[in-house]
Amino acid sequence: MAIEIINTGSELMLGRVLNTHQQWLCRQLSDLGYEVTRQTGVPDTAEAIESCVRESAQRADVVISTGGLGPTSDDLTRDRIAALLGRPLREDPAIVAHIASWFDARRRPMPASTRVQAMVPEGATVLANPNGTAPGLIMDARACRTSGRGDAPCWVIMLPGPPRELRPMFTDQVVPWLAQHLPLAELCRTLTLRTTGVGESAVEERLRVPLREFLDRGLDLAFCARVGEVEVRLEAKGEAQLSMLSPAAERAREALGSAVYGEGEIDLETTVVRLLQTAGKRLALAESCTGGLLANRITNVPGASTVLVGGWVTYADEAKRAWLGVPDALIAEHGAVSEPVALAMASAAASRSGADFALALTGIAGPTGGTAEKPVGTVWIALAGPGRPRAQRLVNAFDRPTFKWVSSQQALDMLRRELRGF
Amino acid sequence: MAIEIINTGSELMLGRVLNTHQQWLCRQLSDLGYEVTRQTGVPDTAEAIESCVRESAQRADVVISTGGLGPTSDDLTRDRIAALLGRPLREDPAIVAHIASWFDARRRPMPASTRVQAMVPEGATVLANPNGTAPGLIMDARACRTSGRGDAPCWVIMLPGPPRELRPMFTDQVVPWLAQHLPLAELCRTLTLRTTGVGESAVEERLRVPLREFLDRGLDLAFCARVGEVEVRLEAKGEAQLSMLSPAAERAREALGSAVYGEGEIDLETTVVRLLQTAGKRLALAESCTGGLLANRITNVPGASTVLVGGWVTYADEAKRAWLGVPDALIAEHGAVSEPVALAMASAAASRSGADFALALTGIAGPTGGTAEKPVGTVWIALAGPGRPRAQRLVNAFDRPTFKWVSSQQALDMLRRELRGF
Repeated sequence: MAIEIINTGSELMLGRVLNTHQQWLCRQLSDLGYEVTRQTGVPDTAEAIESCVRESAQRADVVISTGGLGPTSDDLTRDRIAALLGRPLREDPAIVAHIASWFDARRRPMPASTRVQAMVPEGATVLANPNGTAPGLIMDARACRTSGRGDAPCWVIMLPGPPRELRPMFTDQVVPWLAQHLPLAELCRTLTLRTTGVGESAVEERLRVPLREFLDRGLDLAFCARVGEVEVRLEAKGEAQLSMLSPAAERAREALGSAVYGEGEIDLETTVVRLLQTAGKRLALAESCTGGLLANRITNVPGASTVLVGGWVTYADEAKRAWLGVPDALIAEHGAVSEPVALAMASAAASRSGADFALALTGIAGPTGGTAEKPVGTVWIALAGPGRPRAQRLVNAFDRPTFKWVSSQQALDMLRRELRGF
Repeated sequence: MAIEIINTGSELMLGRVLNTHQQWLCRQLSDLGYEVTRQTGVPDTAEAIESCVRESAQRADVVISTGGLGPTSDDLTRDRIAALLGRPLREDPAIVAHIASWFDARRRPMPASTRVQAMVPEGATVLANPNGTAPGLIMDARACRTSGRGDAPCWVIMLPGPPRELRPMFTDQVVPWLAQHLPLAELCRTLTLRTTGVGESAVEERLRVPLREFLDRGLDLAFCARVGEVEVRLEAKGEAQLSMLSPAAERAREALGSAVYGEGEIDLETTVVRLLQTAGKRLALAESCTGGLLANRITNVPGASTVLVGGWVTYADEAKRAWLGVPDALIAEHGAVSEPVALAMASAAASRSGADFALALTGIAGPTGGTAEKPVGTVWIALAGPGRPRAQRLVNAFDRPTFKWVSSQQALDMLRRELRGF
């Protein structure tokens, strides 16, 4: 089964917005076992949308379009696809009522132009939009196939542009629709292990021998390296492989050991917040070079307030002295980027906050400030807790934002390992 | 002139990575006045790459591909395009020498497989890669045009996948090549004004009348709304319009007044850091609901250390009390999310840091914790400085990350307006 995605929008072609739909939809579909064979971005002109949909329909069983369902003059997707398929549009009173109540709930007048979103092409399936006004639409698109492929199915699924409308509509309505109308010939399941602290080639090397017997029998293994982490993805297709997924994942977990921090969609900050919650422990932070990124990542996790007391962003040396009591002499003797200063920051953060654990970072983010002995990218990360505080030195020689991200990742991982007893 | 972009990579189609090349290249090209008419993502199989390049070549004057030039078995772009155009590959000794010296400089052995990157299709122009090993390539692709378009040019420009290699190669080599080989029929210049604090439709409304005379004479005006800001883009094509650009921008600046925070590629945090540097003033922060995001944004700006003393992330109420001395009674009487608490946080941050200005935020990020009186999204933002501290209440009823971003944007803007004397 071939699925193509079409992202419409002149702002995409002008580079004004980042196309996040592409990644999100591809990821959802591939995790379900569907294959996205092509993705196309086009400006929102009638001609570009029509020709692109017509071309995709020749090749694909399903064409998913995003955008162009709204009320303004550059929202042409619904009209152009209906025209391409020779289907007249009719106003759907239920959608008009939904749009009216949507505006009513927000105590805003309903602009007349928004009614156009209630126009439904004949024969289309309507996907309700509880998070906005424009519904999604599914249409049989075989009418625009000009060549070959006989009676193979051809569907066009139109989704609204805003992510907070598109995503729940896809998950709640498109996924069940696909399962019903286009079930996969073979069952497919994927399992993702998330690792940190080990490079991509080392992860691959560790798994080569332990997983060989599963891979020889057809299980698929893929790696994706991101900044500060590597994702390991196992994919099983068909009954025989499905039964291999759990034992293969178990073998992979053994081989990777403490490098695995989670499974599925979880991220490292959520993992750490959950571990702290389970342990009933609280955390404080003292950040210099990461400048608040670590606190920001932790507070992105809903429920972070149950475990995070807070943190100090002691960017200037005087803040390290005044707010955390790091002795002048320590900074003068060892420099602000040093093991003793990192340890002093962590210990002070723990004692002044009353938290069970404290993480501290001090380093040189660059682009300037490095020396031969302490090059740009040098960072000391300290952890204070029930035991003796300890620190590690790392060199993250990256651009500034990457340095901050990798350093915050290493700090989170240091605490994760402590909490897991590694 | 039509330009198409082809992004190759199975990891794109699996949704494992975000396609940032598309936005970046589209933005660079559109700012130069070139039009990207289509963007396509395909897996890195020989068949997908060949058919996609062949199709794009029928429509476009220039096809830019990204990825697939490296040394591994899934790097097929160079080979497949050379085969499509019937050009044999020959090893280029200069590129072999570059690759060898690249590994030498990093004191790593040169794997034999990397030599494949020195293979150059006959007649291709080589784009040097100072930031990696795989060079870019430019080829005349008219040989694969099967229909129409007569002698119109058709070029394929192959760029490497890693952004830190692709971006400088594009800027330093592709842009001059385009100017020489495919100069625009008309000169084109764009000018972008960045605004914050005013919605997209209000920005549009404010500009409608003042810019009418310029728009009537053909100047192009576009808006792009992002979270917490709206970008206004003026585009002039041809001599007559070029002369309108400055007066139109001046008129737009007048009409938008203090909403304009910058021009071109600058962001709000950089604007604020530069204003503080110019004024010789320093800043401290006290963040509750933004959880360190504001500090993180400011410390993303190189040189932030010259103006930022640091900040407190007083996430728990006890941190507000213990670290900033916010009185228990104040929190008990008004709640942690209140004007008096925000003002107390800002005043304490200023006095305890010795900074000239302090920003403080306290609010309800959600998803839980809201009440009828203080719904999720409520935030108090306070600014302490040379004058009396003051605070504003806003309701940012968004998801958690968006709430944090918008609130940090409003805090930065509050300080920007203070520094600019608005």
